[in-house]
Amino acid sequence: MNAKFVPYYAVIFTSTQRHNTQGYDAMAEHMETLAKQQPGFLGVDSARNDIGITVSYWENLDAIKNWKQNIEHQQAQLKGRSDWYASYNVRICKVEREYRFVSS
Amino acid sequence: MNAKFVPYYAVIFTSTQRHNTQGYDAMAEHMETLAKQQPGFLGVDSARNDIGITVSYWENLDAIKNWKQNIEHQQAQLKGRSDWYASYNVRICKVEREYRFVSS
Repeated sequence: MNAKFVPYYAVIFTSTQRHNTQGYDAMAEHMETLAKQQPGFLGVDSARNDIGITVSYWENLDAIKNWKQNIEHQQAQLKGRSDWYASYNVRICKVEREYRFVSS
Repeated sequence: MNAKFVPYYAVIFTSTQRHNTQGYDAMAEHMETLAKQQPGFLGVDSARNDIGITVSYWENLDAIKNWKQNIEHQQAQLKGRSDWYASYNVRICKVEREYRFVSS
């Protein structure tokens, strides 16, 4: 995401998947598209090896709450628990400080 | 990491690498071993595709500050900026809420 003054909020989502994850990638892509349209969305970072880590950034807690309650997102969460995830962990965090480096 | 009551702290480290990352993996592994020995260390999650995301968890801000100032870690940070990273971003966060799911 681009520079943004603290404080703002981050949702750290870490997950492990089951063996059969048919349909997961398409759903994940759709959810990212949808998240980007939500009010208060600031950005998202994502990577996966043994575990997946997705960190999304939000202006405030209300924006996170609204996204959590989005109908399509709710359906994806249900499907995630029933079909795709072996486990996951969600952490709601206040970003208090930030610094960055870019090589010259 | 194992269950831990909020609040605690998370350091979200996102990075992109340069082409030649010789020596990086060994250093990263050594830093993880060293971090685990620090007072106040709670756990770490890590994944890398196009970008790398490492989230480390700490009891409080002092624990994060002490780890940042660790001599070997300082040397690794210098080496990271001179040789390995194209860019990185560090976010210091207070974990305010947490919930988890484990499939039955």
